[in-house]
Amino acid sequence: MSRQSNRTTDNKKMNSELFTLTYGALVTQLCKDYENDEEVNKQLDKMGYNIGVRLIEDFLARSSVGRCQDFRETADVIAKVAFKMYLGVTPSVTNWSPAGDEFSLILESNPLVDFVELPDNHNALIYSNLLCGVLRGALEMVQMAVDVRFAQDTLRGDNVTELRMKFIKRIEENLPAGDE
Amino acid sequence: MSRQSNRTTDNKKMNSELFTLTYGALVTQLCKDYENDEEVNKQLDKMGYNIGVRLIEDFLARSSVGRCQDFRETADVIAKVAFKMYLGVTPSVTNWSPAGDEFSLILESNPLVDFVELPDNHNALIYSNLLCGVLRGALEMVQMAVDVRFAQDTLRGDNVTELRMKFIKRIEENLPAGDE
Repeated sequence: MSRQSNRTTDNKKMNSELFTLTYGALVTQLCKDYENDEEVNKQLDKMGYNIGVRLIEDFLARSSVGRCQDFRETADVIAKVAFKMYLGVTPSVTNWSPAGDEFSLILESNPLVDFVELPDNHNALIYSNLLCGVLRGALEMVQMAVDVRFAQDTLRGDNVTELRMKFIKRIEENLPAGDE
Repeated sequence: MSRQSNRTTDNKKMNSELFTLTYGALVTQLCKDYENDEEVNKQLDKMGYNIGVRLIEDFLARSSVGRCQDFRETADVIAKVAFKMYLGVTPSVTNWSPAGDEFSLILESNPLVDFVELPDNHNALIYSNLLCGVLRGALEMVQMAVDVRFAQDTLRGDNVTELRMKFIKRIEENLPAGDE
């Protein structure tokens, strides 16, 4: 398919503002559709998951990144390659747990929240929660189960945006029955 | 506001795939929410309009484009500056009406429809209709009333995507009562 082959060779760069405003339209629509912020958060995470499981293929094709040796390498690839590629920003990797199974991505600026102010009646809304789902979905496709959540958010008055990522387990690849 | 000033100086470039998939999530959500494709098309146009009236400010700040002398100049700015900036592609401007009040933007590739195939039960869906609204809204803010619609769409089997734009009228600026 011509569209398929275009996709891996093109390198269309765009500014983030149209994306930012379109994302805002999506969140606004979900706030109309669902009863409360918790449901919206859940829905954003679910949508993000579905996006992540598709985006990983594009990412692997574009980045030529191979299998990561450990969670530290995964963290670096996410911050320096993936965020840079799809959001145009490079978060710093920090706050490692002693066991090396947990870290934070600190975003000085989050492109998703430009132009945005949370209305008073949406105190529990995790506006950028789609990103958690994207990371979770994409990593699951490379056999890593991770927990992703927002620990800080500039929209809620924090100085930075902090995504906390926790390694849960390596997912066994399903081998065809009878193999090995 | 610090966020405001960042916005005009930053120049975050990103690949389009995350935007493309997020837009897909928005369209999918609207297809769940509304009875039929016509309603979804209308909603996409309305959302786009709201985005356009906000995006124009960012565009004017970034592009340093001044007031266009005529509709031909407007067409060039839209194709070469605006599309390039926010979608990473440059459509060609063609099919001018003899009166010079109508033209087409031809997109060889439309970033919004990468990964997309229309399901059979959505024959009337104008998938990228948000773009029509964005153009309409943005141009209205610079005192131009235009009609924007899709004339061809690769998603529907056409070879290219064609956006048809028709100048309707110049909107009078509202002057404060008593002026002039």
